[in-house]
Amino acid sequence: MTGRRNRQIVLARRPEGRLEEGHFRSAVAPIPEPGPGELLCRTILLSIDPANRAWMQGTTYRDPVREGDVMAGFTLAEVVGERRTRVAPGTIVACEAGWQEYAAIPADRARPIEVRGPLSHHLSVLGVTGLTAWFGLADIGRPRQGETVVVSAAAGATGNVVGQLARIAGARVVGITGSDAKNRMLERDLAFDGTVNHRSATLRLDIAARCPRGVDVYFDNVGGRVLEAVLPLMNLHGRIVCCGAVSQYDTATAPPGPSGVPGFLVVRRLRMEGFIVLDSVARWPEAEADLAARVARGELRVLEEVIDGLESAPRALVGLLAGDNVGKRMVRVGPDRAGERP
Amino acid sequence: MTGRRNRQIVLARRPEGRLEEGHFRSAVAPIPEPGPGELLCRTILLSIDPANRAWMQGTTYRDPVREGDVMAGFTLAEVVGERRTRVAPGTIVACEAGWQEYAAIPADRARPIEVRGPLSHHLSVLGVTGLTAWFGLADIGRPRQGETVVVSAAAGATGNVVGQLARIAGARVVGITGSDAKNRMLERDLAFDGTVNHRSATLRLDIAARCPRGVDVYFDNVGGRVLEAVLPLMNLHGRIVCCGAVSQYDTATAPPGPSGVPGFLVVRRLRMEGFIVLDSVARWPEAEADLAARVARGELRVLEEVIDGLESAPRALVGLLAGDNVGKRMVRVGPDRAGERP
Repeated sequence: MTGRRNRQIVLARRPEGRLEEGHFRSAVAPIPEPGPGELLCRTILLSIDPANRAWMQGTTYRDPVREGDVMAGFTLAEVVGERRTRVAPGTIVACEAGWQEYAAIPADRARPIEVRGPLSHHLSVLGVTGLTAWFGLADIGRPRQGETVVVSAAAGATGNVVGQLARIAGARVVGITGSDAKNRMLERDLAFDGTVNHRSATLRLDIAARCPRGVDVYFDNVGGRVLEAVLPLMNLHGRIVCCGAVSQYDTATAPPGPSGVPGFLVVRRLRMEGFIVLDSVARWPEAEADLAARVARGELRVLEEVIDGLESAPRALVGLLAGDNVGKRMVRVGPDRAGERP
Repeated sequence: MTGRRNRQIVLARRPEGRLEEGHFRSAVAPIPEPGPGELLCRTILLSIDPANRAWMQGTTYRDPVREGDVMAGFTLAEVVGERRTRVAPGTIVACEAGWQEYAAIPADRARPIEVRGPLSHHLSVLGVTGLTAWFGLADIGRPRQGETVVVSAAAGATGNVVGQLARIAGARVVGITGSDAKNRMLERDLAFDGTVNHRSATLRLDIAARCPRGVDVYFDNVGGRVLEAVLPLMNLHGRIVCCGAVSQYDTATAPPGPSGVPGFLVVRRLRMEGFIVLDSVARWPEAEADLAARVARGELRVLEEVIDGLESAPRALVGLLAGDNVGKRMVRVGPDRAGERP
């Protein structure tokens, strides 16, 4: 342990508009003592997610992060202490320890992980983002053989898994990103059938050109003008999976919604449905087993970026919101096992 | 018959913005001869619907109505001739004869009606608008005992039936209209639990005040700012039934969509789904039987307006789009049986 000191990153100032590194500051606190029923968790990997930004904005599905709070975040951690719990030290848990080296976490809010393969997979393809892809497709999108699936933020942590799973289901898959380099990677490495750059001035025409039979499922990670561009291309009885609206997190005010809502929903009999993967926790083991088997068989490639050092977290999040990640982004805060060299 | 003349109303000019009576003109044509497999239908009642306006605008779920076309419309008609069909003259059918006294209609596009009670009920509560209310609630809204249901265009042909059926299902029902007089009628005659006038400057607050436990089902007939006002009030796992967007039919350009799409859909796990009652034709008998039984038992009141004379149809539609109807609006084109006085 680092001399009984607990390094932290705190939200210094709530952003009014675009998030910057200066909205955070470093801090040091004592390592907490676990209370009764609590675990002392040592952070190994810290998940960097678009939702981190939404949590600063106000009410979402969790309490907002306030100025002076340790920044919130999902983590994989090693249990290095406990008080009156049944969890053995050395257990690896998924928990929300936030942007710090140590946290005391109620045992019932830490989920023991049966580690399969690299630990990082439990934050990427087997983690919340991979599960989000799995449940959004299984419960809402339901792509069928021969249908066309469009996914936005397609090189992102969730989007790349959506595209790969849809392709496995026999769908034609078109990915939307903001970078030609990402698009080339998706077509070359992940066998996407087509890609579109959302910065194009002819966005809707570009998507239409890649989807000659229209769009049956749109897995929407971004909202805004990409959603607006896809809406008129939806086929009868199409499904729009509302997974997030990253285009709208990093702003102070809500922009207008997509023109065509509700008109196209009526005319094309579309279903548009939001979901949060945390609602499906009881079914996670089924999804994890399916995803792990596909990774083991080589059907599903794992896209992830591991950035070193807790102090890199603000930069990692600011960059993520600007779209510069490929696959699941995470920060390594400590070694996999206490005593290892990081 | 009127001296072998077939009076018609034709779309003279496609409206660019708001529809006016001057966009139509009267015409006279010979009464058509039914071809093989066709019926000669004499129009009795002509349905006046917001969708009539949408059909002039471009692609919907049917071909657009073009300049010079007889205006399209749903009708109840008597079969007064046929050629090589199995339909007996005197049969009453529902068909799309349009705004004219006589039409030749393929027999497979005319649905024989088993008349129960007043014929007009087959255009109102037992017709497409009543069925729309029934299927929108049964398949998408699914209100449960104690939930709160909000319906817009609540005094309209579909809206009043939605409110009454939701109340029968044990929900608290709040109606939105553009008129205090309509609202008083809904509370007094149809036992709505609350009403809101959408012309209020504090629309969202007004709805919130009538819905102290939030909104579980919003049956949206209007889109636009009413939809935008209801969205933030939706409860977790709420359902939005997208039935139409009458606020958007009578304009040249599509306005922006509701702010909060897709953000609220994700955070509150909402489902927003469009439907067209014509997709459920196979299940109409079930719905008609249920509605007819409720009318017979006095549970469901029938709100309808019958305006006399084909020449009244343009005025009836223009007024409907301005919101001056209460319940189902229709035009009587001829008597219930040939030879009767109209």
